[in-house]
Amino acid sequence: MRTFWTTFLFLFFLLSLYQSCFGSDAPPISDKTKTCLSCHNTIHPGIVEDWQTSRHSHNTPKQSQQVQGLAKRISSSDIPKNLQKVTVGCAECHTLSPKTHKDSFSHAGFQVHTVVTPKDCALCHRQETEQYARNIMSFARKNLNQNPVYQDLQRTIHGTIIEDKTKIGFQPANDFTRAESCYYCHGTQLLVTGNKTRKTSMGPMQFPIIKGWPNQGSGRVNPDKSKGSCTACHTRHAFSIAEARKPYTCKECHIGPDVPAYKVYSASKHGNIFFAKVNSWNFSKVPWTVGQDFTAPTCAVCHMSLTVDKNGQVIAKRSHNMGTRLSWRIFGLIYAHPHPSEPDTTKLKNSAGLNLPTELNGQPIENGLIDPTQQKTRKNRMQAVCKACHGSSWVNNHWQRLQNTITQSNKAVKAATESMSAIWEKGLAQQNKSLFNEAIEKKWSNIWLINANKIRFASAMAGGGDYGVFAQGRFALSKKIKEMEDWFLIHRKLSQ
Amino acid sequence: MRTFWTTFLFLFFLLSLYQSCFGSDAPPISDKTKTCLSCHNTIHPGIVEDWQTSRHSHNTPKQSQQVQGLAKRISSSDIPKNLQKVTVGCAECHTLSPKTHKDSFSHAGFQVHTVVTPKDCALCHRQETEQYARNIMSFARKNLNQNPVYQDLQRTIHGTIIEDKTKIGFQPANDFTRAESCYYCHGTQLLVTGNKTRKTSMGPMQFPIIKGWPNQGSGRVNPDKSKGSCTACHTRHAFSIAEARKPYTCKECHIGPDVPAYKVYSASKHGNIFFAKVNSWNFSKVPWTVGQDFTAPTCAVCHMSLTVDKNGQVIAKRSHNMGTRLSWRIFGLIYAHPHPSEPDTTKLKNSAGLNLPTELNGQPIENGLIDPTQQKTRKNRMQAVCKACHGSSWVNNHWQRLQNTITQSNKAVKAATESMSAIWEKGLAQQNKSLFNEAIEKKWSNIWLINANKIRFASAMAGGGDYGVFAQGRFALSKKIKEMEDWFLIHRKLSQ
Amino acid sequence: MRTFWTTFLFLFFLLSLYQSCFGSDAPPISDKTKTCLSCHNTIHPGIVEDWQTSRHSHNTPKQSQQVQGLAKRISSSDIPKNLQKVTVGCAECHTLSPKTHKDSFSHAGFQVHTVVTPKDCALCHRQETEQYARNIMSFARKNLNQNPVYQDLQRTIHGTIIEDKTKIGFQPANDFTRAESCYYCHGTQLLVTGNKTRKTSMGPMQFPIIKGWPNQGSGRVNPDKSKGSCTACHTRHAFSIAEARKPYTCKECHIGPDVPAYKVYSASKHGNIFFAKVNSWNFSKVPWTVGQDFTAPTCAVCHMSLTVDKNGQVIAKRSHNMGTRLSWRIFGLIYAHPHPSEPDTTKLKNSAGLNLPTELNGQPIENGLIDPTQQKTRKNRMQAVCKACHGSSWVNNHWQRLQNTITQSNKAVKAATESMSAIWEKGLAQQNKSLFNEAIEKKWSNIWLINANKIRFASAMAGGGDYGVFAQGRFALSKKIKEMEDWFLIHRKLSQ
Repeated sequence: MRTFWTTFLFLFFLLSLYQSCFGSDAPPISDKTKTCLSCHNTIHPGIVEDWQTSRHSHNTPKQSQQVQGLAKRISSSDIPKNLQKVTVGCAECHTLSPKTHKDSFSHAGFQVHTVVTPKDCALCHRQETEQYARNIMSFARKNLNQNPVYQDLQRTIHGTIIEDKTKIGFQPANDFTRAESCYYCHGTQLLVTGNKTRKTSMGPMQFPIIKGWPNQGSGRVNPDKSKGSCTACHTRHAFSIAEARKPYTCKECHIGPDVPAYKVYSASKHGNIFFAKVNSWNFSKVPWTVGQDFTAPTCAVCHMSLTVDKNGQVIAKRSHNMGTRLSWRIFGLIYAHPHPSEPDTTKLKNSAGLNLPTELNGQPIENGLIDPTQQKTRKNRMQAVCKACHGSSWVNNHWQRLQNTITQSNKAVKAATESMSAIWEKGLAQQNKSLFNEAIEKKWSNIWLINANKIRFASAMAGGGDYGVFAQGRFALSKKIKEMEDWFLIHRKLSQ
Repeated sequence: MRTFWTTFLFLFFLLSLYQSCFGSDAPPISDKTKTCLSCHNTIHPGIVEDWQTSRHSHNTPKQSQQVQGLAKRISSSDIPKNLQKVTVGCAECHTLSPKTHKDSFSHAGFQVHTVVTPKDCALCHRQETEQYARNIMSFARKNLNQNPVYQDLQRTIHGTIIEDKTKIGFQPANDFTRAESCYYCHGTQLLVTGNKTRKTSMGPMQFPIIKGWPNQGSGRVNPDKSKGSCTACHTRHAFSIAEARKPYTCKECHIGPDVPAYKVYSASKHGNIFFAKVNSWNFSKVPWTVGQDFTAPTCAVCHMSLTVDKNGQVIAKRSHNMGTRLSWRIFGLIYAHPHPSEPDTTKLKNSAGLNLPTELNGQPIENGLIDPTQQKTRKNRMQAVCKACHGSSWVNNHWQRLQNTITQSNKAVKAATESMSAIWEKGLAQQNKSLFNEAIEKKWSNIWLINANKIRFASAMAGGGDYGVFAQGRFALSKKIKEMEDWFLIHRKLSQ
Repeated sequence: MRTFWTTFLFLFFLLSLYQSCFGSDAPPISDKTKTCLSCHNTIHPGIVEDWQTSRHSHNTPKQSQQVQGLAKRISSSDIPKNLQKVTVGCAECHTLSPKTHKDSFSHAGFQVHTVVTPKDCALCHRQETEQYARNIMSFARKNLNQNPVYQDLQRTIHGTIIEDKTKIGFQPANDFTRAESCYYCHGTQLLVTGNKTRKTSMGPMQFPIIKGWPNQGSGRVNPDKSKGSCTACHTRHAFSIAEARKPYTCKECHIGPDVPAYKVYSASKHGNIFFAKVNSWNFSKVPWTVGQDFTAPTCAVCHMSLTVDKNGQVIAKRSHNMGTRLSWRIFGLIYAHPHPSEPDTTKLKNSAGLNLPTELNGQPIENGLIDPTQQKTRKNRMQAVCKACHGSSWVNNHWQRLQNTITQSNKAVKAATESMSAIWEKGLAQQNKSLFNEAIEKKWSNIWLINANKIRFASAMAGGGDYGVFAQGRFALSKKIKEMEDWFLIHRKLSQ
């Protein structure tokens, strides 16, 4: 008999172990969401299954609120009672505050909206949403779309190419082109323009017509006027922190050659370690422990994540406003410059009246950029991350090189811009219609928009070697600047 | 005593569990293959070990035939009896039908051939082989090699560079160059030109001399006249479906910049999800369940794989003829156009007598391209895949953008081509000897062969942002078209 | 009672199993290292944790010496007794032979040096260090820095851009620029220039000022005069063989476009297999068994690793001197040529007195390059690796193609160089001040430094297709050579 109990208890122990590892007391799915799932399970199996893997499907807001300290993933305290005790399913997001959503439509007995916006997410993730609203990325659309200088540049890049006799010109691009080129990343404006009836497997149904859809750009303007798309980084419908922390997410918009962050990272020592060890790291832990969960930074580590040491001491605070750790904007417009102090850069204006953060000679404008004190604060926040693995002299010397590269690359851009000015002065190119639409102007643009940026990104991320030198960096810059000189010589002679 | 039996039974249970997980009733290896292995085990350990990991080494055709329904991986029903009950080893493929193989040679008592061809694979995989024979990829060699227009282009790219006084010219490339440049992907012609004796660790042995070997190009012409190489995607000797389903396989030939499919994919949202989650997906399952085995498409998902929803309902049928889901050929020759209806495109001819699918003004030719009805059928097949995760308006709007981009990019190519025509007319470049051999003609080629394609691939795969704009897309296209204009101006002035 | 013992023994068995899998008799950490860890645990948690994952922290030199045969990872036999029985921790490396380290400083009661050098590593890894000292990579700094021809090229690429009236010129780059561009990979010279006091969390402390720090370039000149940095490939502080064997490590310096090894690899069949299967391979095993630990080569497999077949027979011996398997230097300077026989290439001189391995017409110089016999020896070493998976005719034919590509690409460079010479002769560009500083000279440099190299790397690594043809390979080369001709025409006409 004792044998029986021994064996029984042993099996019971194994079963409990199994339960605690694999079993679940799954929290309840709301009735509304169950209704959604009953059809979409079959109609859109891919996204339903994806959601099944998410924390949203395994936790209720109440459970998440009970987590204390740095491990807490939810920042709102006033979540409506009816949402607290069910998982975050289809209906919880897609039927939230229907009145604020212009794309809300009657569907299977509910008011459903297609586009879930940061305002919806803010119900549970208020802090993250508020931070993001202060992030320059949330103005990515406006800052491009409402800046006349950039609009001129944009038109001459993705505009419709027309031939007027022998002259090639650029008409403004149509909405379709816009949506898949610049505004794929910068964000479209989503406008509800009507609705239409479509045959579905459930019979005819009405759906809203949304101009600019689909889009997940970081500065998307939503039907409820909010800016941004959380799914730009936390892809629907897993909304995974692990995915957002991997550099592949940032790659979508930061691959270059104008903003070659991913490429430079992947050729840096940090990238080397990431690719070699990624499978042994833990990308889901909150907070994120340096040396234990990961041993080299990803984009998220340096720019936004909450990181701690193994004693739980905070190394860097989480922020969805990347600006908090950025002292410089190394992306040249047309020169690198101190980071703008406000996310809305359409207000920046130089003394020539152009909406640019610098004068044409490279001097940063006086208003609207952060001052040296703020630059230092931000630098210190970023360096705290570096210093978890590197000594101070390592870090300081790296920073000196970046500082030098900002100076040197701006100097090169200045030389190119002076060449360009001389060409304009001689009347060999016309400045009045557009600064960017002629062959020589495009060569000049290439220098500050692609080559100088490549050099600075390689410097900033210590992915120096080949990316800063040969891959559209210094070799190309020096080549193009001499080609400008050569072009000038040819055209001066021809115009004599 | 009862204790003894309890323990014994428990251990027996554990053992059975172990057996069922890790044990094996390995199916028999044929005697012929055992003979091969007895030497090649030591001589070529890498490939023997690789084969050990394959399904071919763990299953007999008979076992595979017994699988019913969508999980079946073998499509022939009349497999010879002597092959049915042994694993698919060295001898089963390399000694099959020696008479049809011109490279068959006497080796260790067997008639062995070096090059296993689709005809060999067809013994078990008939349907796949037949589909592939209808795939334009199987004509990749012929369509390039027997088209005078492409031959002219090819010669001026990879030809031997000669100097005739001050003039640089291009002689046809030799066979070695051809084999490792264009025909690395397009496929060489394998010709048995004799045989030679080589010293081996087993004494002197005779081997066939095969011109064009090695090659695994998709349009390879084999010694048995068959076209293609299954190992182009299912690498020897694991012949893995998992490997073929990963985008790295397609990358080998579709990385660009002329066909930048892999690059665009890797910077798209789909690519982001793939790279972030690849290790948790199941690449070996047949059929392949959306949302369970994978949560974002790879190349194979959209273009060829059999996919089902979790209820086993078919979303898309498997086909080794990729054409079945392709309504457009977005690769410009020199314009994007409706997909050819037959895999042999050497028959296409435009009104100027050139073997091209479009007129020089972009108009698709009348015969040989699929009609709008067929385009719609193919579009619907492809969209069925999209709709497993995306709503109809998402999918339709994406398609509208692609359609617009085909129009817009063709318009840009037309403007470039009109510039080129004007240059030819003025006699500043010569059209009679070659359309592609002068500096300005190469700039024009760059526009339609690289820039316009980049833009269309970025559009088609929603990898829009940087790839369609800055990475040799719209910025480069608009720059180059203005440089053509500038060149024209300079040379007109000089020729006055 | 028997029941009790049965259960007890069973649990004991489980426990032993657990112990043998997860338990440890951790070898002792030295007292000195414990002192280091007591602070740096908190100050630099990232690197301390990283070290915890290393073999250095889990093994003593004595244990490693006891390993016999090919599995041995340590090559010195005379390791000092006091170091033999403790793990290799902070103090073991950073306080070794303080007198030889100019950067040694008094720190927390010890003489500590910042820069651990190959001489330190040699204490245990003598053979590897000696081999590396014969590797051309250890002269990467000197060979660039002390060659007047390369210095001219370097200045015109990364030099400070100055404007002298309308003329753009290049002044020598400053140390910061140098350190993050060419010398990021080639290695800086580390010079102790003084010391300074810094406030730390432990109070004020003195640290050495090291010019050129940080740097991990392969040819770094260390404060103890040794050359190189083991951490270039074996990243601090895990010093992992697994990491060094993955191609991401080599990518840091060999991504191109001048040395596009990683890019070509990643688009080759070998790369395809690597990316598809990397997670099932064993990158830590020594020796490394073909077909079992890996099924396709990485950079390390072909160029340096000790590989065996499954019977333990050696396929290739380990060497940290990559030259042992390299018969050609396919990197053009300005032509591809037989590999230099000595790692110090500053001694090479052609008949024009230029420090180059070839004449300007492509002829290899007579002294200092390996002869055909040595080329054959090296080729055979490399081919032994190929032949573990490929038949002789496969391998030989591949080699013939590479040989042909060396000839053909050199021929193309010769044509470009003759064009350049004609331009110099006509006085349209000036040879006396610099060979590389004018627009047309940069176009010529682009041909041999980027395009011809791309073609050769694609050939050598069978990553042919797109990389050799369109991605800055043959298409770009043929385009640029015709543009040189066009430029010549324009400037001749203008100068008349």
